[in-house]
Amino acid sequence: MSENWLDEIQWTEGGLVPVIAQLHDSGRVVMFAWMNRESLALTVAEGYAVYWSRSRQRLWRKGEESGHRQKVIDIQLDCDADVILLKIEQEGGIACHTGRESCFFRSLTDGEWQATEPVLKDPKAIYK
Amino acid sequence: MSENWLDEIQWTEGGLVPVIAQLHDSGRVVMFAWMNRESLALTVAEGYAVYWSRSRQRLWRKGEESGHRQKVIDIQLDCDADVILLKIEQEGGIACHTGRESCFFRSLTDGEWQATEPVLKDPKAIYK
Repeated sequence: MSENWLDEIQWTEGGLVPVIAQLHDSGRVVMFAWMNRESLALTVAEGYAVYWSRSRQRLWRKGEESGHRQKVIDIQLDCDADVILLKIEQEGGIACHTGRESCFFRSLTDGEWQATEPVLKDPKAIYK
Repeated sequence: MSENWLDEIQWTEGGLVPVIAQLHDSGRVVMFAWMNRESLALTVAEGYAVYWSRSRQRLWRKGEESGHRQKVIDIQLDCDADVILLKIEQEGGIACHTGRESCFFRSLTDGEWQATEPVLKDPKAIYK
């Protein structure tokens, strides 16, 4: 397969692109992360989300420790070709390392960030 | 109101935070942009999305030219406190400068980014 589609992406100076992960069925946004060219190519080749971990400076196959992999349903690109929207099926129903469905579990309420949803699984049981 | 909630955000070195704008009713992700501290405070104060335009290096009240403002319904923060998810009501039903509902109108199909939705309004008629 030609790699023109990878060339069309406007990568950052550091060679990354921001990625929004959204549940394909409910539409819930569950995560935000980054990919580099290699991880995006692997995401397409393997059919599961592979990110680039900026903190660890290495490929990060989502779910490699937790088992909470993200099956790719659709890959969308924005008008400026510099943001990816990944429609996924979340294995285990948990995307967040805190054990919640989504990383976005806090809302600004009365001037405070208040958690609005419970932990589904103790992180200690997820990351052994 | 105390500004502790602003202090809790992990701003980038450049003082920004990435923001995902999502329609509060359908759940559609329509845009990705950035905010700095001032623009986020203004977003809360005014009740409409105010971004920081990195290309123009100035505050950008979404819809200031097009009229397509984004009324804020909810502001969510992720687990690492470094990404904002904005639940909005999109005035005019168009978030993208191409005249589409969403900036994410292309899907990777057969190795190509293919547009999957129509232009609702000619940009020339939006930006006079």
